[in-house]
Amino acid sequence: MPKRVDHEERRGTIAEALWRIACERGLDGASLRDVAAEAGISLGQLQHYFASKDEMLVFALGHISELATRRVTERLRALPAAPAPREVLRETVAEILPLDEASRTGNLVQIAYFVRALHDERLRAHAKEGIPALRAFFAGQVREGMARGEIAADRDPDAEAMLLIALADGLTSHTLLDVCSPEEALRLLDAHLERLFTR
Amino acid sequence: MPKRVDHEERRGTIAEALWRIACERGLDGASLRDVAAEAGISLGQLQHYFASKDEMLVFALGHISELATRRVTERLRALPAAPAPREVLRETVAEILPLDEASRTGNLVQIAYFVRALHDERLRAHAKEGIPALRAFFAGQVREGMARGEIAADRDPDAEAMLLIALADGLTSHTLLDVCSPEEALRLLDAHLERLFTR
Repeated sequence: MPKRVDHEERRGTIAEALWRIACERGLDGASLRDVAAEAGISLGQLQHYFASKDEMLVFALGHISELATRRVTERLRALPAAPAPREVLRETVAEILPLDEASRTGNLVQIAYFVRALHDERLRAHAKEGIPALRAFFAGQVREGMARGEIAADRDPDAEAMLLIALADGLTSHTLLDVCSPEEALRLLDAHLERLFTR
Repeated sequence: MPKRVDHEERRGTIAEALWRIACERGLDGASLRDVAAEAGISLGQLQHYFASKDEMLVFALGHISELATRRVTERLRALPAAPAPREVLRETVAEILPLDEASRTGNLVQIAYFVRALHDERLRAHAKEGIPALRAFFAGQVREGMARGEIAADRDPDAEAMLLIALADGLTSHTLLDVCSPEEALRLLDAHLERLFTR
């Protein structure tokens, strides 16, 4: 089905154009026309794929979260067999933080989307979608750490998971603003984990 | 000097119009003309005070941070004389979190500004301005906690301060998105402080 491949390629090209704009000048005020120009296609061609800026953002976000999941999975695979929960949590949060260009771009698109979602209930539902899965994954790791005696038995796995997600988000903002260097963000993450894990 | 009072009043009216727009639909795409219409003045009148959207945002941010500082100060004054560092930290972060409408509005304007600052070095300098002062204030409280034997002596006050700021920011995003309720955000803050303070 060569037609289908073409469509996917075209969507990919459009998403990449959107990311370049997000990185260089942000999506505030960027129109479908701007994205079409950046992708080197006509507005009509772009509208064949995406009827609105929000549709395009939802697609770009889906792509980003797929790429991020793939990067985390690869990173965890590179660890020794059966890695300790502390390592899994560290590597996963490190992959979320904007420590390299790819992750920085992904974070900028996510923030552009987040800001729109604040004022649109339908978009908000999408923005919140990934969080329960991430929270459940982190809580599972905390539970595993407790079972191994590496985390105090009186911790609440669900609260610890949400704290880690909030911390990852806060460190992301401050790294994007150059308040924290990538190295400092990692050091702060380690300081937090050091307090969560008793050994 | 009645003229001066008029000017300040007018600036205040404009800032309030900007806040209403930020709250209702965000500043993404909101023009000077939109803000003038919301404030019930002409575009020309508005431009007498602010030549650009960014100038207006800088002013609105300054106002917000003044109001926030005043709220924190009042809140700390309401505590018993010489409050413990733990209480000071809790009350200050609680005042930053979007737990009520005023603070929610302030946070929305700050986020709109933050997103623009990501792509503009000059604005970024402004956005980062308040952080060293807040960080120094938090680090001072942590040091005080250590001196009182309430925080383990091996903690790094500066790192703990930045962790608290990052956590406050992350909890803010998740409260604005309705991932956390205001009550849950407070509970998570308490869980974090519970681990920082040994007694």
